[in-house]
Amino acid sequence: MPHDRIADLDAHWRAANYLAAGQIYLLDNPLLTEPLRPEHIKPRLLGHWGTSPGLNLVHTHLNRLVREHDLDAMCVWGPGHGGPAVLANSWLDGSYSDTYPTIGRDADGMRRLFRQFSFPGGVPSHVAPETPGSIHEGGELGYSLSHAYGAAFDNPDLLVACVIGDGEAETGPLAGSWLSSRFLDPVHDGAVLPILHLNGYKIANPTVLARIPEDELDSLLRGHGHDPIHVTGDDPRSVHTAMADALDRALELITADQQAARTKGTRARTRRPMIVLRTPKGWTGPAEVDGVPVEGTWRAHQVPLSSVRENPDHLRQLEAWLRSYRPQELFDTDGRPTARVLACVPEGTRRLGANPHANGGLLTRDLPLPPLEHFGVPVDKPGAAVHEPTRVLGGLLARIMRDTAQRRDFRVVGPDETESNRLGALFEATGKAWQAGTLPTDEHLATDGRVMEVLSEHTCQGWLEGYHLTGRHGLFSCYEAFVHIVDSMVNQHIKWLKTSRTLPWRAPVPSLNYLLTSHVWRQDHNGFSHQDPGFVDHVLNKSPEVVRVYFPPDANTLLATADHVLRSRDCVNVVVAGKQPTFDWLSLDDARTHCARGAGIWEWAGTEDPAKGPEVVLACAGDVPTHEVLAAAQLLREHLPDLSVRVVNVVDMARLLPREEHPHGMTDPEYDALFTPDRPVVFAYHGYPWLIHRLAYRRTGHAQLHVRGYKESGTITTPFDMVVRNDLDRYRLVMDVIDRVPGLGVRAAAVRQAMADVRTRHHDWVRAHGLDLPEVADWTWTG
Amino acid sequence: MPHDRIADLDAHWRAANYLAAGQIYLLDNPLLTEPLRPEHIKPRLLGHWGTSPGLNLVHTHLNRLVREHDLDAMCVWGPGHGGPAVLANSWLDGSYSDTYPTIGRDADGMRRLFRQFSFPGGVPSHVAPETPGSIHEGGELGYSLSHAYGAAFDNPDLLVACVIGDGEAETGPLAGSWLSSRFLDPVHDGAVLPILHLNGYKIANPTVLARIPEDELDSLLRGHGHDPIHVTGDDPRSVHTAMADALDRALELITADQQAARTKGTRARTRRPMIVLRTPKGWTGPAEVDGVPVEGTWRAHQVPLSSVRENPDHLRQLEAWLRSYRPQELFDTDGRPTARVLACVPEGTRRLGANPHANGGLLTRDLPLPPLEHFGVPVDKPGAAVHEPTRVLGGLLARIMRDTAQRRDFRVVGPDETESNRLGALFEATGKAWQAGTLPTDEHLATDGRVMEVLSEHTCQGWLEGYHLTGRHGLFSCYEAFVHIVDSMVNQHIKWLKTSRTLPWRAPVPSLNYLLTSHVWRQDHNGFSHQDPGFVDHVLNKSPEVVRVYFPPDANTLLATADHVLRSRDCVNVVVAGKQPTFDWLSLDDARTHCARGAGIWEWAGTEDPAKGPEVVLACAGDVPTHEVLAAAQLLREHLPDLSVRVVNVVDMARLLPREEHPHGMTDPEYDALFTPDRPVVFAYHGYPWLIHRLAYRRTGHAQLHVRGYKESGTITTPFDMVVRNDLDRYRLVMDVIDRVPGLGVRAAAVRQAMADVRTRHHDWVRAHGLDLPEVADWTWTG
Repeated sequence: MPHDRIADLDAHWRAANYLAAGQIYLLDNPLLTEPLRPEHIKPRLLGHWGTSPGLNLVHTHLNRLVREHDLDAMCVWGPGHGGPAVLANSWLDGSYSDTYPTIGRDADGMRRLFRQFSFPGGVPSHVAPETPGSIHEGGELGYSLSHAYGAAFDNPDLLVACVIGDGEAETGPLAGSWLSSRFLDPVHDGAVLPILHLNGYKIANPTVLARIPEDELDSLLRGHGHDPIHVTGDDPRSVHTAMADALDRALELITADQQAARTKGTRARTRRPMIVLRTPKGWTGPAEVDGVPVEGTWRAHQVPLSSVRENPDHLRQLEAWLRSYRPQELFDTDGRPTARVLACVPEGTRRLGANPHANGGLLTRDLPLPPLEHFGVPVDKPGAAVHEPTRVLGGLLARIMRDTAQRRDFRVVGPDETESNRLGALFEATGKAWQAGTLPTDEHLATDGRVMEVLSEHTCQGWLEGYHLTGRHGLFSCYEAFVHIVDSMVNQHIKWLKTSRTLPWRAPVPSLNYLLTSHVWRQDHNGFSHQDPGFVDHVLNKSPEVVRVYFPPDANTLLATADHVLRSRDCVNVVVAGKQPTFDWLSLDDARTHCARGAGIWEWAGTEDPAKGPEVVLACAGDVPTHEVLAAAQLLREHLPDLSVRVVNVVDMARLLPREEHPHGMTDPEYDALFTPDRPVVFAYHGYPWLIHRLAYRRTGHAQLHVRGYKESGTITTPFDMVVRNDLDRYRLVMDVIDRVPGLGVRAAAVRQAMADVRTRHHDWVRAHGLDLPEVADWTWTG
Repeated sequence: MPHDRIADLDAHWRAANYLAAGQIYLLDNPLLTEPLRPEHIKPRLLGHWGTSPGLNLVHTHLNRLVREHDLDAMCVWGPGHGGPAVLANSWLDGSYSDTYPTIGRDADGMRRLFRQFSFPGGVPSHVAPETPGSIHEGGELGYSLSHAYGAAFDNPDLLVACVIGDGEAETGPLAGSWLSSRFLDPVHDGAVLPILHLNGYKIANPTVLARIPEDELDSLLRGHGHDPIHVTGDDPRSVHTAMADALDRALELITADQQAARTKGTRARTRRPMIVLRTPKGWTGPAEVDGVPVEGTWRAHQVPLSSVRENPDHLRQLEAWLRSYRPQELFDTDGRPTARVLACVPEGTRRLGANPHANGGLLTRDLPLPPLEHFGVPVDKPGAAVHEPTRVLGGLLARIMRDTAQRRDFRVVGPDETESNRLGALFEATGKAWQAGTLPTDEHLATDGRVMEVLSEHTCQGWLEGYHLTGRHGLFSCYEAFVHIVDSMVNQHIKWLKTSRTLPWRAPVPSLNYLLTSHVWRQDHNGFSHQDPGFVDHVLNKSPEVVRVYFPPDANTLLATADHVLRSRDCVNVVVAGKQPTFDWLSLDDARTHCARGAGIWEWAGTEDPAKGPEVVLACAGDVPTHEVLAAAQLLREHLPDLSVRVVNVVDMARLLPREEHPHGMTDPEYDALFTPDRPVVFAYHGYPWLIHRLAYRRTGHAQLHVRGYKESGTITTPFDMVVRNDLDRYRLVMDVIDRVPGLGVRAAAVRQAMADVRTRHHDWVRAHGLDLPEVADWTWTG
């Protein structure tokens, strides 16, 4: 590397460091054109200096690499609170001003850049949706590497660098995501270059990876399938040289690996390059403050000088620190970066702050969705046949997979459950991504597969988020109970989407779609540990602009729902559907209409007398509750034929919310037209019953609403015993109706007793026979 | 190892394999005393054979090791659905019959053991609370190793073996928990012996770790700080020999390491032993079924022969398989295991199924809780002083830490936030556990520290669960938003405790206590990504016997709450309390009374006229809402002095639930006495407002309940702007009161306008000044 080039890189790095420190401290006097005074300092000092110089170093050197090789590249910035550095770099490469014209690449823009940082009404201290060039929120740690891989899949020309902080490296999700390298195909996927940045400390502690013997760390990373290139130092010049060499070497190895795979079909299974960068925490900041060491210790994590407004020594020290970067050499008198600073900065969409992959909606193409008629099941009359809904969906997904074989912009992820969730048809269209060793007995493994199975919900979620945020489509199929594993990740993704929607420059991206199956009511042999319907509650707490929850009750409604969610953008769609054989209730046309409405009356299922209107509403959401409600409606028709019963099925849960609370919410007149303002409603719901109250508590008829659902009464048992244990069974529902409709008389009392007797016999049987629970006789809809 | 001993071990292993297969298949004819007929077979075949032979091998060999060395040992069985194996072994060592006398160690008991497995009303297919000797639920994967370490901490004489399945090894939490070895102190802690069992497959796929080159796997495990001993094979005799040698060698290394540390004070920082066991999936089961290979493939995962009742070939094959173990050599005619089978089985509490550490409540001692008077803050009148509640709590925790210095049965865990959460006083009493390298600038690190900080909520939670289930006490301090990371883990722990409570033989264990701080209202510089109060909603969906949620509003109530939760058993207690300076509202005595009631009227804060009763109730839960409600009450007193206002504060959220729904729930008369049946209630709540509706929807006065709380409107901003954005501010609350109390007249209308004007001015200021949000003037309670 020529001396001059090193000097260019160092100038850029110093500029970025200056700008990072400036964001933490300065309210005014951004170019230090006058001596620093207390009133130039922010009243409350917030932000994280510690990680900034390292991130600035990486950005500076990635700039050089990208520019020299005209690379299509982006970077995922993992370290927490790395905002000052990434913002500084985006301002330097001009992408910040392109995105936010009020913050120009000049002195006034610099002043604004400084003021807005970690300031009320301003920008967060970590990388966020507001940050140009970013697909990764640096607030919650653990997901940088899986995001990077998600971005690289099916982007063969893309290089995704990924900076992993040594704090983040301690998290479970990050530790698990190292396995991702075993799934990356050098032919169809781009490259991921992990850069493990060991600055040695987290908030108040050393990090483990920085303190284990270096040979153990090296061994660990080799075990993860990497060939680590170590860059260590605290002398800028030598670190610049080493870092530039390391990146050149890494790119060489990546290119060779890709070329061998793409042109000769060889997959060397060589370890892939990565960089271990060891530089001091808070490098180039104050070495000592008030007599204690700061640079290179955990004390540099946040604000190294904390009393600058009050303490003249601190103020002097800050000024000396800022001037140590020699800003007058870095910015002209108008505050614009000098040519030397910009010498290695790429241009246009090659800038890391402007790569379109990091604003993936720009690249999104609509999925080629086939007509549902090819996949729908015939329904001449309701309840005459059964299908496994997810198996029917599998046909649709397989077709989409086949129709995107060239485009490669659709993936299905899941923790080893695609087959078990009855989506096996997918394997007629593609394989399971797999780069590790194979045996002759293996099935469906393929280096270029677009079904991705790894026994980590975290990694699945991270991959898919990265894939979506770079503009592509997907589906996550998961056991209902275990999707809670990614509660916190989906929180952050929802927050990302909510914020993105407020940023006009962010193009909408495909929605994150969950298919939750193997659900709470059918854990016949797994029992209590596999029973949890609460993900829906979790999601519905979050931003209503983003979240949608669907309970299609049969095969055709599942198809119609899938078609809808795969077309949607910037949402998180949760679709809950069983994989067990379920009655077909609606024809495809009826299913489409019903799903478009989100909730509706099933006239054919009830006994509503149009003259008097319903005396009671039997409502349901979910496949098992729908089944029990229809059975209850049938019992009522048989035993109390004069009772006017309306059956309502809800697919789109947000319909229950007031219109003011959710874009899908019903107005009060709409709600009352379905549920009535004053008649008893017996609602059988798939999950925790109080969710329905939480959604509907403002409705006029709420006091008349009675909900049955899962109340944490689970075990290994038959499907029928499960509904009895949770008071969701047809007999209990009939009793609920009778208890709530006034004036039904002696006939109803006798029916109620008969229902209670069935339940008593069931309980007696359980008590007497213990294990030998009978399944109820097959029931069929005769309505 | 003498031949005879190998033969003993093999006999035990065959017996366990026979019993595991029997559980999956047999309804009757347990000893195969007659030819196998279809009616001997279970009608529905459920269970997981694949992992069983490997687990049986490990159990057989651990028995030998324990017996030969008279070890105090337990084992954490990680692989999913490993139930058949662990139950078989517990039945063999007699601990199963000791625990469940109706299932004797004889033919009839064997028949019952078989029938109950994965059968309605029976036992789960995975290791569970019902399983003697277990502290680990095998239903959700990822936590075995952190549980094992949690069990070993502060149990210096205990050996905790931990079998990790190669499926589980792909999860993030497991991958992250390998770091635990960097925190285990050979002096004060016991030993953990990880046994990575590679049988090569998960449900339908190979596992990654089984298919990477062996040298990479070895390198990975060395990187984790281990010296792997590899045991590989499919010939039982040679595997027995190798496994016995491996365990002897591992024990030797562990003992040497412990002795060196304990007697000479040397900490060699040598890598610790672990075993990599590679045996075929479904080993000794059918090699081929219907012409396709099964043993040694993913097809052996569950039930290798699936149509035994219907298909005579399958029936014959099953019989041949079962007879291949030569049951007549293993069990006498009464079905009792022979002497050879039991030759290596330990006795009494040395049996893995009977070790008291695995029923940890047996060993629990009450914590030495000091009088709170030493820590309480003086409160002569409400709101006269401020304290940081968590800092006050820190004093109490430090004292407990000091008073358990010898007993070592109390730990505090957290992801690097103890100091940031203002619990730093703990470091006057103990250090932070740390075994890796140190530098002179480090602070508070100590090999024997009992504060545990690792940047992984998963590992923190896993450690603490293991520590609790072996009978010890602890606290998890966590940022409120990021505790969602362990949503799924706490689910499983709650399920464990719920089931444990129904098992008379399981002694109650100390509760799992969360301190959630750095909460949603005070993320001034972190913003939206750090704002999430939903963990409480998640927890309150779960079993009411187990879950408790507390919102102490000031320092003394936090002390009283902490005192309570640290005494409780078999609960999950969530305590949400701020770390920022907060007014002291209650004296210690008043705090105790208030917390014991869980909710109560603060007479001093309201203007209730006893003659007419309240015209409105201002209710609050949480420190910030309490602050705003008191400010609102003060505004009302000032502006509408004749209005009869009652102020109610809720600490224990479950009080709001009906008594029938939660043991802490209020009866309707109690609720009405606090909140009135018919007056408007304006409730300011810390989290999502609909939670309050979900808790109180059955109450008479529900239609009059109006709740304000966090509604996902967050950003970087001042505390005051946060409450304004979410309509939780004092001015909005006063407006809410005026809007809801009828007949207040013109004076009230003017007050309402004045309040609205304050809010408008605030919004205008934000619009006009952007970044430069003013903080509202200091407010003090003058009531």
